Amino acid sequence: MAAKGDRDVGYELYYWPGIQGRGEPIRLAFEEAGVPYVDVGRLPETRGGGVGAIERFLTGEAGGVRPFAPPFLKVGDMVLAHTAAILHWLGPRLGLVSEHEEERMAAHQHQLTLTDLFAEVHDAHHPIAVSLYYEDQKAEAKRCTHHLVSERVPKFLDYFEDALRRNKRGKGEHLVGDRLTYVDLSLFQTLSGLAYAFPRAMQRLGARIPLASALRERVAARPRIAAYLASPRRIPFNQHGVFRHYEELDDAPPRR
Amino acid sequence: MAAKGDRDVGYELYYWPGIQGRGEPIRLAFEEAGVPYVDVGRLPETRGGGVGAIERFLTGEAGGVRPFAPPFLKVGDMVLAHTAAILHWLGPRLGLVSEHEEERMAAHQHQLTLTDLFAEVHDAHHPIAVSLYYEDQKAEAKRCTHHLVSERVPKFLDYFEDALRRNKRGKGEHLVGDRLTYVDLSLFQTLSGLAYAFPRAMQRLGARIPLASALRERVAARPRIAAYLASPRRIPFNQHGVFRHYEELDDAPPRR
Repeated sequence: MAAKGDRDVGYELYYWPGIQGRGEPIRLAFEEAGVPYVDVGRLPETRGGGVGAIERFLTGEAGGVRPFAPPFLKVGDMVLAHTAAILHWLGPRLGLVSEHEEERMAAHQHQLTLTDLFAEVHDAHHPIAVSLYYEDQKAEAKRCTHHLVSERVPKFLDYFEDALRRNKRGKGEHLVGDRLTYVDLSLFQTLSGLAYAFPRAMQRLGARIPLASALRERVAARPRIAAYLASPRRIPFNQHGVFRHYEELDDAPPRR
Repeated sequence: MAAKGDRDVGYELYYWPGIQGRGEPIRLAFEEAGVPYVDVGRLPETRGGGVGAIERFLTGEAGGVRPFAPPFLKVGDMVLAHTAAILHWLGPRLGLVSEHEEERMAAHQHQLTLTDLFAEVHDAHHPIAVSLYYEDQKAEAKRCTHHLVSERVPKFLDYFEDALRRNKRGKGEHLVGDRLTYVDLSLFQTLSGLAYAFPRAMQRLGARIPLASALRERVAARPRIAAYLASPRRIPFNQHGVFRHYEELDDAPPRR
């Protein structure tokens, strides 16, 4: 359930309890760092957790800067929303990015690019409105996903493969600097999500991203990440998150 | 054209020359600060400007961290992409946000929320694919925009109105802290864009956001901003940017 530690350790992550979604890059960072955090949404309500705990911040009832949406992190009085902002702030504290400003910003901009990819993947199964069911926008989702998988995903993947190649200090193994950063973890998460959502398409695309594919395997094999992935703390991919597998959307031919 | 100064002043902004788009929040920050910057995309090609200058970075030919997309800022050897990351980095340097980390992060998260709104506004006229013309996704755009204007825009506007109300130090006039930050400028830009794109809908929604509406007017009246808006440096809103006015999308009834 909630990771190690308890509610008074300091780092409180608020995110929907049933999905990996936009919270998972943050969970991976805490897990890799071995730093205790409380996954408040997954705590029972009797211990101050659950969706109700999240809602109190979204409605503004809880005080502080009111977040627009989860995930958000609470540390003392600070409430910080947006995955990329949270990782930017946490990165040096977790030892998952250099303190050097230029490297920090290089990591941050990569994370924001991944944020955009997450949004495009999400919107492809909800192209008309988040307030509508998938079934109410299925035809549009099919058209949209065709473009996503044939144009956008390859563009993003080529970009990150090239970024791995261009970062000389990382020797093809790291996106920023000469060691693991939270962005490497997030790229792992992205590739894992895409492979879940679009197994056929990603099978085809895998060959063009050897460095990124190797990074994905290396991250999965890191002791703390491997332990996390095998634990009940790792929520399985499912049909409620950012990455969803709809058989009819994987490698779908265009439909008007 | 390119703002004050010349190419060797230090701050080089790279963004598509014909639109406000995601570059405008950065232009507004430089203009308000009175700090020289070069708007490289708007320089003539004979002076190293134009779209070609942008493309050299996008293809990776120019070296450094290769940006995924404009806008990006070049300062010395650093190349930094993403509007919110650029403003986060520039903010303290332009005197447009406190040096205090918690305030900086509060501004950054608001900016990222505005980034999300920009994306939703853009995607509503291109719900299926950026690679298709508006005309090829007009029916979907109509459905999507109905949800945008009736659900999402009010939710975002209410959020920022409330943020103005909740920031006691700002006395209802500033989103963060007790003085103008780049986020106030970006909220001005957002409201201006929405008023351009959806005049009928925004006319209706205006009444629910008195603080935000007053902020918009105050920002427009600031001497440097007023001078900028009246200058040829301010590209008019048009049908190529994030905020577009399609008569049929303003206040459109839902269509299946």
